[in-house]
Parts: sequence; C-alpha cells; structure tokens
Amino acid sequence: MERHFEHDLEELKERLLWMASLSEHAVHRAVQAVFEKNEAFATEVLEGEKAINDMQIEIDDRVMQLLALQAPMAVDLRFILATSRINNDLERIGDQAVNIAQSALRILRHPQVKPYVDLPRMSDLAEGMVRDSIAAFIRRDDELAKSVLIRDDLVDSLRDQIFRELLTYMMENSAVVYPAFELILVTKNLERIGDHATNIAEDVIYIVAGRDVRHLAADRR
Amino acid sequence: MERHFEHDLEELKERLLWMASLSEHAVHRAVQAVFEKNEAFATEVLEGEKAINDMQIEIDDRVMQLLALQAPMAVDLRFILATSRINNDLERIGDQAVNIAQSALRILRHPQVKPYVDLPRMSDLAEGMVRDSIAAFIRRDDELAKSVLIRDDLVDSLRDQIFRELLTYMMENSAVVYPAFELILVTKNLERIGDHATNIAEDVIYIVAGRDVRHLAADRR
Repeated sequence: MERHFEHDLEELKERLLWMASLSEHAVHRAVQAVFEKNEAFATEVLEGEKAINDMQIEIDDRVMQLLALQAPMAVDLRFILATSRINNDLERIGDQAVNIAQSALRILRHPQVKPYVDLPRMSDLAEGMVRDSIAAFIRRDDELAKSVLIRDDLVDSLRDQIFRELLTYMMENSAVVYPAFELILVTKNLERIGDHATNIAEDVIYIVAGRDVRHLAADRR
Repeated sequence: MERHFEHDLEELKERLLWMASLSEHAVHRAVQAVFEKNEAFATEVLEGEKAINDMQIEIDDRVMQLLALQAPMAVDLRFILATSRINNDLERIGDQAVNIAQSALRILRHPQVKPYVDLPRMSDLAEGMVRDSIAAFIRRDDELAKSVLIRDDLVDSLRDQIFRELLTYMMENSAVVYPAFELILVTKNLERIGDHATNIAEDVIYIVAGRDVRHLAADRR
C-alpha cells in the first residue's frame, strides 16, 4: 500500500510537469505569434487548448483518487492540495496563452505599433517566472520560489510603463488606437501569467516551509 | 465523531457564505465608486481587502483540518474540495473589486466618458452571477447554476460592445484616452468576476451531479 502510494504520487508529479510544459509552450508560441505576426503559431495555440484542458481534468481525477483511497496525512496532504492548486494555475496560464493568440490574429490585420515597446521584456520575464516556479516545485527549492515572488513587482512596473507608452501613442495618432488596444490586452494577459506563477511560487513555499505566505505582500501595502 | 464532522461541515459552509458576502459587497461598492465618483466607497473596498484575505486562509485551514482528521469519502470529499476552489474564486473576486476601486480613484481625476456606456448593465449582470452561483451552492440547485453559465456569454458580448464604444470615443477625442482606458480595465475586471462566478457554478454542478462540466463550453467552440 505504502509503495503504491509513493508510485501514485510520483505519477501525479510527472503529469503536473507535463501539464506545465504544455502551458509554457503555449505562452511562448502565443507571444511569438504576436511579435513575429505568425498566424500558424497562433492557430497552434488555439488547437492545443483541448490537450491542456484534458490534462487538467486527468490531474484533478488523480488528486481525488489519492485523497479518497489513501487518506494522506500532513506533508503528503499538503503536497497533493498544492498540486491541485498549481494544476488550476497552469490551466489558467493556458487560457491566457489562448487570449494572446486571439489578439495575435487580430493584430495581424493592423499596422504595427512602434517596436512593441517593452512587451518582449515583459513576456521574457513572465515566461521565466512560470518556468522557475515549476522548477522550484520539482526541486522543493523555496529560494527559487522567493525569487519568483520578487519578480512579480517588476512585471507590474513594466506593465505600467507599457500602458503609459501605449496611451501616448493612442493620443498622438488615432490610427493606432485599435492595435494599441490589442497590446493593452496582451499586457494584461502577461500580467496574469505572472500572477499565476506567483501563486505557484507561494504554493511551493507552503509545501517546503509549511507556511502560508499568501497575502503577505498584499497586507504589507 | 460523525456528528462532529457534520457540525464542522456546517461551520465550513457558513464561513464560505460569509466570505461570499464580503466579496459581493466589495464588488458592489467598487462599482458604485466608479459610477458615482465616490472616493469613500473606493477607500472602503481597499480597506476591506484584508478581511477577505484572512477569511480565505481561515477557510483553507478548516479544509486542511477536515481532510486530515476526518478522511471524508465520496460526496463529502467532493463538497470539501469544491469549497476550497470556491473559496479561491471568491478571494479573486475580492481582488477584482480592489482593482476596480483603484480605477475609480484614478477616474475621479478625469472628465467623465459619456454616460458610462453599457458598463452599469454589465456590472449588474456580473454581480447577479456571483450572487446566484453562491445561492446555487447553498441550495445545491444545479438549474440555477446552469443559468449562471448561460449568462457568461452575455457578459462576453457586452464586453465586446463596450470595448467597441470606448475605442470609438478614444479615436474621436484624444482627451478621453485616459479615462476610457480606465473603463477598459474596469470592463476586464467585470469580465473576470463573471468568469469566477462561472467557475463557482461549474463546481456546484460538479457537487450536485458528480459530473465535471469544466471546459464543455470551451471545447464546443
């Protein structure tokens, strides 16, 4: 029984890793679709959504099974509940990739807005946060998880800067109002991807330290 | 033991109801702050964030306790896991209310954009969805939950319509670019509130029917 449980836990972890790689890839492709005006990449992301959704449900089913059949305690219980939450965040990251891909398809039809301001920097940052939050989960590395939390402030300040630039363009030239609006949406999507990575990092700290760090940043404000 | 468990479940439900009322109230006040340009309402929402965050952590602790000490099966396990997810959605709804309140404070400083287009209709709709998703949870009413799912399409089409109008204003008059941009953010926040209510409604259907309806709508597209 005990051995079986360890095996199931290991499998759960592998599925979550697979789920993470699907979501990460979707974000990367979606962002490429925007920057390179690549329609095929955008379509690839839209078509990949179902695989991510199916994987989410499979992982949730495994979580339910483990909880129902094994009644895990303490450390394992914390790990399984965190896995369930991370699974949820990864699926939402996939949703954001879909939104970005949809924006990419609409942006194709408009003239380009300047050299995309600081968006590529923001997307690199957000993608790195997702990657590192998952790496932190796998290695139970709470230092790496903390570095993700810190980067979220950088994402927010980049967002504000990009908004300011886009609004300036919109005021100067009404012809770019539409494409600049799409870039506002993409910026919001990247911000949310950073938020989800932050949630994952908080869950890692919760698993490693057994301490709930959610809202610490918010309450400090 | 059994009796104790029932009592704990009942208490968990009551806490979740309390959490729901805090989040609902925050959304209502935040939206009022925008429409009535009421600074005091916006401040009230910002100050209320901590209570919502604290309640989320309390509910999560109760969920952990119940899972660890009682090892619930089947129906109860499903109910407890759904409660944990709904708790999460309610906290995010509170976050959206905070974002709207922050927009309200910035909007105060600008001239008003027309008669706020269809935003009041969209906010009524989103607030109603939150209210009904929670009512459906309490009464285990899957018909009411389904009506919430249907309304989400209406929220999305209202969002598109509001975006179109705001972009038209921005193109016609560069003086409204800033306040119209804030209203774009508020529209996005209301859309997300509708999404969270939809998540809650899906969890209700999951509890009542034991069927996972997530992604059905997405896959149909």
